[in-house]
Amino acid sequence: MVFRRHLFRKVVILGTGLIGGSVGLALKKNELAAKIVGTSRHEASLKTALTMKAIDEAEMDLHKAIAGADLVILAAPAKVILENIKDIARHLRRDCIVTDVGSTKGLIVAAAEKHFPPHVLFVGSHPMAGSEKSGVANASADLLKGASVIMTPTAKTNKLAKDKVKHLWTKLGADVKVMDPDKHDEVMAFVSHLPHLTAFALMRAIPDEVLGFGSTGLKDTTRIAASSSKMWGDICFSNYRNVLKSIDEMAKSLAELRRAIVDKDEATLTQYLNQAKVKRESLDKKQG
Amino acid sequence: MVFRRHLFRKVVILGTGLIGGSVGLALKKNELAAKIVGTSRHEASLKTALTMKAIDEAEMDLHKAIAGADLVILAAPAKVILENIKDIARHLRRDCIVTDVGSTKGLIVAAAEKHFPPHVLFVGSHPMAGSEKSGVANASADLLKGASVIMTPTAKTNKLAKDKVKHLWTKLGADVKVMDPDKHDEVMAFVSHLPHLTAFALMRAIPDEVLGFGSTGLKDTTRIAASSSKMWGDICFSNYRNVLKSIDEMAKSLAELRRAIVDKDEATLTQYLNQAKVKRESLDKKQG
Repeated sequence: MVFRRHLFRKVVILGTGLIGGSVGLALKKNELAAKIVGTSRHEASLKTALTMKAIDEAEMDLHKAIAGADLVILAAPAKVILENIKDIARHLRRDCIVTDVGSTKGLIVAAAEKHFPPHVLFVGSHPMAGSEKSGVANASADLLKGASVIMTPTAKTNKLAKDKVKHLWTKLGADVKVMDPDKHDEVMAFVSHLPHLTAFALMRAIPDEVLGFGSTGLKDTTRIAASSSKMWGDICFSNYRNVLKSIDEMAKSLAELRRAIVDKDEATLTQYLNQAKVKRESLDKKQG
Repeated sequence: MVFRRHLFRKVVILGTGLIGGSVGLALKKNELAAKIVGTSRHEASLKTALTMKAIDEAEMDLHKAIAGADLVILAAPAKVILENIKDIARHLRRDCIVTDVGSTKGLIVAAAEKHFPPHVLFVGSHPMAGSEKSGVANASADLLKGASVIMTPTAKTNKLAKDKVKHLWTKLGADVKVMDPDKHDEVMAFVSHLPHLTAFALMRAIPDEVLGFGSTGLKDTTRIAASSSKMWGDICFSNYRNVLKSIDEMAKSLAELRRAIVDKDEATLTQYLNQAKVKRESLDKKQG
C-alpha cells in the first residue's frame, strides 16, 4: 500500500477572497494539500492570502497557476467563474478535478459541462458559509465547520470526482448535501437570495434621518445588507428567473399584509402573523 | 432633609408581561419602589410574576390594585392600554404619576390626555427593549440596561411627572430620548414596525418545503418574525397610517430592485445594492 500524506498534491484556488482564502487555510490546517497556489485579479488580496498562509504561492497568470494541478477550486464571483471555466478548460491536466464555490449553480454547471473536455472531472459545490464580511482578511480555517455544502453532481459527473470532493468538504467540517443544479438555484432564491435582497430593499426604504433610532430588530434583519454589492448583483443575474420569482412572492406577501391592515381585518392579520411566527419557530427546530 | 428610601411608595404595573415583569424586577433590584402590585388578565402570568418576585402582590381587580398608587405603569398591549386608561381614569389618587410602555404613542397619549383628570400626571414612554420572546417568564431585571426609552411629553405634560419618570428609566439603565408622540410613531413605523412586518412577510413568502435549507442569513433576517402576533397585529392598527406608508415604501423599494434586475441594468443594480450596504454600515457606526 502506497502512503500518501495529502489528499491532493497541488491545489489551485482561483480567487482568494473570503471563501477561497478560508478553504486554503482549512486545507493547510487539515494537511489535505501538499501545495496550494492562489490566483486573484487583485494583487493586494493575493499578498494578504500569502501573509495569512492561506496559500503557498501566488500567481497572477491563470495558465501558469493551474499547470499540473490535481484540484482546481473556482472561488471567484459567479460571473468570473464563468469566464475562468472557458479560460482554463483546455489547459488542465488529465484527471484534474475541478469544483467551485459559486452561490448559484445552474449556469456554472452548464458552462463547465460545455467547456471542460472529458478528461477534466468537474463537480459543482456551494459552501453555504460566509457572512456580510468579504475579502481574504476575514477568512478563517473554521469557516466551513458545521456549514452545509450543497454539491450538484449531474448524470455526467465522474464518480471519483464526486467522492473525492465530498470527502474534501467533509474533512473541512462541512455537512454535504446533494441537489440538482436547477433545484439548488430555485431553493437558494428563496432561502438565501430573497432574504438578502429583502434586507437591501429594507435599508433603502428607511429614510436616512430616522435610521439612528433603530434597535436590535432592525440591525438583525438588515445585517446581511452589508454584504458585497458586487457579489449580490452577480447572483441576481446568474439566478435571474428564480430571483424574480422570489421577489414576486415577497411583493405578494407584503400586499396581503397591507390588505389585511387596510381592511382593519384583525382576524386575517392575526392569522397571517401567526402563521409566519409558527413557520419561523419551526426553522429553529429544523436546524437544531 | 427628609430621607426617602424609595423613589415610589406604591407602584402598580398593569400587565405583567415581558416588559412589565422586567420593569418590576428592575425596580426591586434598584430599590426604587417600596411595594409593587401587578395586575393581569391572565392568572398564570400573575402567578409567575409573583414567583419570580417581579411584583409583591397580585391583583385581578384594577380598581383595587391602583388604590393609593403613586406610580402606575401601563404595560399591556397598546389596545388594552387604551381600555385601561378609560377604566382607571377616575380612580387614581391625586398627583398619581402614570406612564406606559406602549410601542405606539399617538393614540395612547391622546387617550390619556382626554380621559385623565388634571390631577393625574401622565407622560408617555416607549422602552425600546424586548425581543421575539414574550411573557413574564422571559423577563429580566437587566432588560432595560443600555436600551433606549423614548419619552413623549407634550405641552400638557406636568414637569414633575416628566422628570420623575425620566429619572426612573435612567435609574434602570436606559438612555432616555424625548420625542413628539406623532413623530415617534412615524419614526417607529420605519425603524421597528416595518422590519418586523418585513420579517413576517418574508417567512410567508418562503415555501415550506425549502425552509430547511436556510442558513444564518435567513435566520437573522427573520428572527423577529417569532414575535407575538397579537402584539404586532395591535401595533399595525394603532399606528395604521404610518405603518401603511412604510409598507408602501418597502413595496416601492422592492419594485425598483426588480426593475433593475428585469432590465439587466447592472449599473443601477450595483448602485442600489451599494447604497443599501453603505447605509447599513453607517447603522453600526451610529450606534457604536
